[in-house]
Amino acid sequence: MSAPQPGGHDLAAVQLDVQLAHDAEAIGREAHSLMGRLYPHCRSLTGDGVRQTLAALQEFIPLELREVPSGSRAYDWVVPDEWNVRDAYVLDSKGNRVIDFRAHTLHLAGYSAPIDQRVSLRELLSHVSTDPAHPDWIPYRHLYYRDGWGFCMRHRDLGLLTEPEYRVVIDSTLRPGSLTYGELLLPGREEATVLVSTHTCHPSMCNDNLSGIVIAALLARELMKQPGRLSVRFVFAPATLGPLVWMSRNEDVLPHITAGIVVANAGDDGGATYIRSRRGSAIVDRAVEHVFAHAASTNASIRAFAPVGYDQRQYCSPGFNLPVGCLQRTPNGEYAQYHTSGDDTQFVTPRALGDSWRLLRLTFQVLDEDRTFLNLFPKGEPRLGPRGLHSLAETLGLFWILNYSDGDHSLLDIAERSGMPFWRILEGARRLESSGLLRDVTNQRAVQ
Amino acid sequence: MSAPQPGGHDLAAVQLDVQLAHDAEAIGREAHSLMGRLYPHCRSLTGDGVRQTLAALQEFIPLELREVPSGSRAYDWVVPDEWNVRDAYVLDSKGNRVIDFRAHTLHLAGYSAPIDQRVSLRELLSHVSTDPAHPDWIPYRHLYYRDGWGFCMRHRDLGLLTEPEYRVVIDSTLRPGSLTYGELLLPGREEATVLVSTHTCHPSMCNDNLSGIVIAALLARELMKQPGRLSVRFVFAPATLGPLVWMSRNEDVLPHITAGIVVANAGDDGGATYIRSRRGSAIVDRAVEHVFAHAASTNASIRAFAPVGYDQRQYCSPGFNLPVGCLQRTPNGEYAQYHTSGDDTQFVTPRALGDSWRLLRLTFQVLDEDRTFLNLFPKGEPRLGPRGLHSLAETLGLFWILNYSDGDHSLLDIAERSGMPFWRILEGARRLESSGLLRDVTNQRAVQ
Amino acid sequence: MSAPQPGGHDLAAVQLDVQLAHDAEAIGREAHSLMGRLYPHCRSLTGDGVRQTLAALQEFIPLELREVPSGSRAYDWVVPDEWNVRDAYVLDSKGNRVIDFRAHTLHLAGYSAPIDQRVSLRELLSHVSTDPAHPDWIPYRHLYYRDGWGFCMRHRDLGLLTEPEYRVVIDSTLRPGSLTYGELLLPGREEATVLVSTHTCHPSMCNDNLSGIVIAALLARELMKQPGRLSVRFVFAPATLGPLVWMSRNEDVLPHITAGIVVANAGDDGGATYIRSRRGSAIVDRAVEHVFAHAASTNASIRAFAPVGYDQRQYCSPGFNLPVGCLQRTPNGEYAQYHTSGDDTQFVTPRALGDSWRLLRLTFQVLDEDRTFLNLFPKGEPRLGPRGLHSLAETLGLFWILNYSDGDHSLLDIAERSGMPFWRILEGARRLESSGLLRDVTNQRAVQ
Repeated sequence: MSAPQPGGHDLAAVQLDVQLAHDAEAIGREAHSLMGRLYPHCRSLTGDGVRQTLAALQEFIPLELREVPSGSRAYDWVVPDEWNVRDAYVLDSKGNRVIDFRAHTLHLAGYSAPIDQRVSLRELLSHVSTDPAHPDWIPYRHLYYRDGWGFCMRHRDLGLLTEPEYRVVIDSTLRPGSLTYGELLLPGREEATVLVSTHTCHPSMCNDNLSGIVIAALLARELMKQPGRLSVRFVFAPATLGPLVWMSRNEDVLPHITAGIVVANAGDDGGATYIRSRRGSAIVDRAVEHVFAHAASTNASIRAFAPVGYDQRQYCSPGFNLPVGCLQRTPNGEYAQYHTSGDDTQFVTPRALGDSWRLLRLTFQVLDEDRTFLNLFPKGEPRLGPRGLHSLAETLGLFWILNYSDGDHSLLDIAERSGMPFWRILEGARRLESSGLLRDVTNQRAVQ
Repeated sequence: MSAPQPGGHDLAAVQLDVQLAHDAEAIGREAHSLMGRLYPHCRSLTGDGVRQTLAALQEFIPLELREVPSGSRAYDWVVPDEWNVRDAYVLDSKGNRVIDFRAHTLHLAGYSAPIDQRVSLRELLSHVSTDPAHPDWIPYRHLYYRDGWGFCMRHRDLGLLTEPEYRVVIDSTLRPGSLTYGELLLPGREEATVLVSTHTCHPSMCNDNLSGIVIAALLARELMKQPGRLSVRFVFAPATLGPLVWMSRNEDVLPHITAGIVVANAGDDGGATYIRSRRGSAIVDRAVEHVFAHAASTNASIRAFAPVGYDQRQYCSPGFNLPVGCLQRTPNGEYAQYHTSGDDTQFVTPRALGDSWRLLRLTFQVLDEDRTFLNLFPKGEPRLGPRGLHSLAETLGLFWILNYSDGDHSLLDIAERSGMPFWRILEGARRLESSGLLRDVTNQRAVQ
Repeated sequence: MSAPQPGGHDLAAVQLDVQLAHDAEAIGREAHSLMGRLYPHCRSLTGDGVRQTLAALQEFIPLELREVPSGSRAYDWVVPDEWNVRDAYVLDSKGNRVIDFRAHTLHLAGYSAPIDQRVSLRELLSHVSTDPAHPDWIPYRHLYYRDGWGFCMRHRDLGLLTEPEYRVVIDSTLRPGSLTYGELLLPGREEATVLVSTHTCHPSMCNDNLSGIVIAALLARELMKQPGRLSVRFVFAPATLGPLVWMSRNEDVLPHITAGIVVANAGDDGGATYIRSRRGSAIVDRAVEHVFAHAASTNASIRAFAPVGYDQRQYCSPGFNLPVGCLQRTPNGEYAQYHTSGDDTQFVTPRALGDSWRLLRLTFQVLDEDRTFLNLFPKGEPRLGPRGLHSLAETLGLFWILNYSDGDHSLLDIAERSGMPFWRILEGARRLESSGLLRDVTNQRAVQ
């Protein structure tokens, strides 16, 4: 006459979060290793560094590369000339490279025009950027949509420039070519689509944004294992211009995007941060908030949308207003290493990369598995005992599911209301459905 | 030229709360005494204990008893066989009753099947429940919808079972009969109905739920004194099955239920607790919240609906979604004596019973007297001086009433907005109506 | 290659708040001086004191005076006889004025009927009011809509009345005449109108309400300098009856009132206080809240509407429900000097008067300049660099404006959402409009 015990029930599904925590460790190490391989490439708005980066991802996922010719228009923007660099340096009178692109891609300002001439120290310094606040790090600069050239160096090394004249050599090309982006569609059972977007234009820096690139790629590989309800589109493209080019060529796809996440700064040791979509409480906003509440390992935080930051700005511009938020750890501009050579492979950790991957994976589960059921015994509570469900009622929130499965509440609604994790509610709904107590009415439900 | 004084005005109505506080003392003592009489009856899902309990209430109110035959269906449920007990005990070798139903009904697990046989100590113990955490109290157990038999005893008495074999005698019957519930309709001027429901199936325990039974009965007696605007229906029925049986036989009544309260655990010394209806801000939810804010004597608290607890679960199931909340003091499961013999006549106090009665009485007043008026002088404030109302303006919130009597706000709305107690606003509205400044438009107002 | 600097941009408009802070000092001194001139006049519901006050304002603004005959009706109210006083005093046996209206208008209760007779000390005292809590101040009393007479005096002077009999002389007239109010219309480009209302019936007290009178007059003078989008109506009228008379004669104007502010107690050193309109989030409520948040110099506070206080009660009565709030510093009844002779020229400071004027001026700017634009490049962010706007993007909230200029959000909406001051957002919108990125759609937008 003791209380009934949950016996031989298979509750594995309930513990997806536990399983993922285990997987995430291995994924984090793999992501960190991949990031190290991609680190040296000189990425920019265009050019071979981006192509090399995307090609490396093709070892993991069947990414399709697109080339968009210079001069192509995307709304208010134009694809610029393609930029490539073979070498760049500043030589002193003894022929020593006092600044050397080969030592670090950040030494050269992005989109620097080719040059080979002797310049006075004064002239040279007017083209050199340093960051006095962080004298040991090379800052990141670029000259997009401007002419000219520039070098960047550690502030503490400025004093090494003592000669009156230097030879400046930038062996770059800046001429018509194309912008390169990568795209991957994972078709689901429905046309409704989740967008995952990450920017590819930053040279040798890890958190911003090799972290987003590798996490998105390994998420894609994971989701390829088993097609879901929702379709998923991955976009790997240079910031700002990339998403605009992609949207301008895929306007027919946009109405199907029911959720989206921009991934960036996903590898530092700070807590996870999510910036809501402009809509504020889109399903993706609620899904991430739910995952943070029930599965974030550290102090995760949620912020309102603001038209600053990464490519959610473009996806959420008023002509699109897509439900796209942004997942980061420490947001752009809020860590000292941001946009400097301090953002290196040591700054980003396998643990943090794995954790970001895990949070995205759980969020995707919520998005994909959120369904709406109808309680077929809505008058009073049906008897769970004769159906062998009594012992699971509390663990799986069965009474919550039954009470709110009135056709107006999805499983995520019920999880939010009950305070229980989505994955338990999901398993509960599966049990109730198997027992004939629920019917799936997802597609009869009015779109939110 | 001093400020005008409220002179010979009759403000008795304003002080209903004060009057009730006085009445509540006497009611509390009477309720406690009645509870003592009902305590020994062996109540269960069915059987004579319930009939004896309801019959005792008929001394106070013209309760009608209903008998629903075993085998009758109520949605997903079926009325079981009726259970009655004449005697039950465990005898040792000397013929001593080592466990004795006559000493306390809780010694026998509810719905235990008849038996008379010798069993080994080991066998006996497999049928005995104790509560090690509370060794001095007999726990409450039942075997609803299961077969078998069981006894319950104080954990500290386990050691007294030292013999190798005992004789077990349960002189019960478990065969087709009926489920008994009590019902009382107090017709009001309108068909709109308040439901008061309380469960009757718990054997000798006071807070759960003789407290609810006696408070509901004495509230009914009070409300019978003067018919109100609203009709009131009282239901005294076994938990879960009772309300389902009642609803299944009264589906035509359900659409008229505009408010309802389940009463339980109404007699311990904790603060009052109210669990909102599933609708969350139904008029009953707002009325109780208002009464708690303005008249609760101790730290009262309000909770959101959850599909756990008492019969509000059934009333609020999605097929009904009735606006029914639950009034308790310390909620089920949150006090140590819950579902044990510790929940006795000492645990429940006259003061707490009286206070619960008072809160219900005030809530009923708010529900019954809430009306909507129209200010007949809506342009500017009408002059109160010439109408002899100036000195009452502040005490009775006259300017609040005038300002918000625009046809969209009821007296409860105005009380909430002004922060004043409903009973003052009510009296203010009566004065303004008498002076020709307001007209009652309650029934012209769109239903909420 | 350093970050672009905001160069020769004219950002004067952005700094309206700074400019106004400077103007407010001079305005505060001027207001205080004008208040000193108006202080001695014996204002009341009617009479020459009001006429003298309004005539003095005509030196600053073309105020139009209206005379409404005694006996005229205004909804539930009637204009009473006109009251004027030449002299009033109480004489002792030696012919000394022991109470003297000429020393302070507050010595005589408003609307005291004429009298000249000897009365016993006992009789006299039954007509004398003092304020024991503030023995050094003469309290303010009146006998509106009642008959009789009364004097007020400092409580500490009561002891000076030692003789058995006194001669009481009140040389007043109380006979058919008219109620006087002042009105000023500043036509704007639109019929939509802002109402500024202030009461004129209080005798020699400064905060209540010479402060409101002078601030409203100097605000009118300022707004006359340049017609705006909105029309503005100023009403200077006795409390309660005045607004009702004005509304009863201007019902055709009322539908055009889209915002209004009652000004009172605008000169004490307390923080600014705003009482919301009955609507609660009318544009005027949001505008004042915004100005308080971004420009209040001290701890400003916002309160909900309540049918108490000043003439917002009448404007917000349910038959009108105009969007009219009330700006004060320390509200009526919440400072010791309230309605006593302690409310004098020392109690009110130039600084506080200037600050109230500044807050009103800024609020008017928000109301007048709030417009709705449509982003003409809604797909993605348009390029700001080629349009010379890049360096202003952050200072002027350009991306906020572009993102939310979707036709549904006005500049105030955007200012609220971005957390930036309205005047920066306004300047940003002007720049974007000049650059062809925005189009003004204010009048195509559905009325709020």
